[in-house]
Amino acid sequence: MSTDPSPHAVPSLESASADVARLTRWADDFPEPGVRFADLTPVFADAKAFRDIVDALVAIGGDADLVAGIDARGFLLGAGVALALDAGVLAVRKAGKLPPPVLSQSYDLEYGSATLEVPADGVDLRGRRVLVIDDVLATGGTLRATAELLASAGATVVGVAVVLEIEALAGRDRLAEYPLTSLLRV
Amino acid sequence: MSTDPSPHAVPSLESASADVARLTRWADDFPEPGVRFADLTPVFADAKAFRDIVDALVAIGGDADLVAGIDARGFLLGAGVALALDAGVLAVRKAGKLPPPVLSQSYDLEYGSATLEVPADGVDLRGRRVLVIDDVLATGGTLRATAELLASAGATVVGVAVVLEIEALAGRDRLAEYPLTSLLRV
Repeated sequence: MSTDPSPHAVPSLESASADVARLTRWADDFPEPGVRFADLTPVFADAKAFRDIVDALVAIGGDADLVAGIDARGFLLGAGVALALDAGVLAVRKAGKLPPPVLSQSYDLEYGSATLEVPADGVDLRGRRVLVIDDVLATGGTLRATAELLASAGATVVGVAVVLEIEALAGRDRLAEYPLTSLLRV
Repeated sequence: MSTDPSPHAVPSLESASADVARLTRWADDFPEPGVRFADLTPVFADAKAFRDIVDALVAIGGDADLVAGIDARGFLLGAGVALALDAGVLAVRKAGKLPPPVLSQSYDLEYGSATLEVPADGVDLRGRRVLVIDDVLATGGTLRATAELLASAGATVVGVAVVLEIEALAGRDRLAEYPLTSLLRV
């Protein structure tokens, strides 16, 4: 585990959870009717909250040598945790954002499917120990596809971490084979 | 200026530039014919390069109290620099990603236009000192629109920083009123 680079005392998981609860901006019927959207923009824009959350996740991601952040909001937290761990951050992209050659993993959505990609050259994933990070755990489909993509490239997923877990969607059940940390469950 | 939280010696701008030159993945004719695309995914995935780049930008963004990262690749570097500065990171989003209410800024592209958005509540930008970060400076349109969006919300843009500057596209000319740092010019 990396030493804490912060000049502050190490905050507790409870402090990070309280920050998330206080600063998350909830929106009903976005992006479509019936969906309640959690916008964590104000959480990450708050210096104390951002530091607290990174510190809380560093404590659980200690032996990762690479942090995977999921396009796009997972980049924010993934990069912070990577820096604090003295690791690199791998951007796991939505389809079409990266030039070929790429490694890809498709997965089913409620209607249709989606694809995630990482470069097939320039980043050697064989034998890497990867912590996967996103902002929100909903159904777990995107996080599961990310873990499968990394495993197919030869990496070991040492953990999955999110800021906010929507318990009613049971995403945790789809990630049962990975150590999973969420800072706040709603 | 923040103290350097890294256990390494402070790397020079030259070290960061060399990392970028060594690890950037170039692709001809992507995303369309005639365009040469710079994929910095392998740069950020490299622990030493990511640390070197963050340290180099921290040295120039010292009195910012908020770092704005531009959707989506700017989130990676913006978050790292924010953490190292003990600041928050503001995600400047493409249109449609945030629930209302939002503040928005539209700008012209070669064909058509694009819009950037930040939350209109939950993040108070008045009086904030913001460092704007993206991965690549091409024509400068997106960076300029970001700076204008932040200024219209009451913030002061204290600087603009990118990893890679494509000199032939003269983006620097569109950002003349802001201190601009690029780690590598090609």
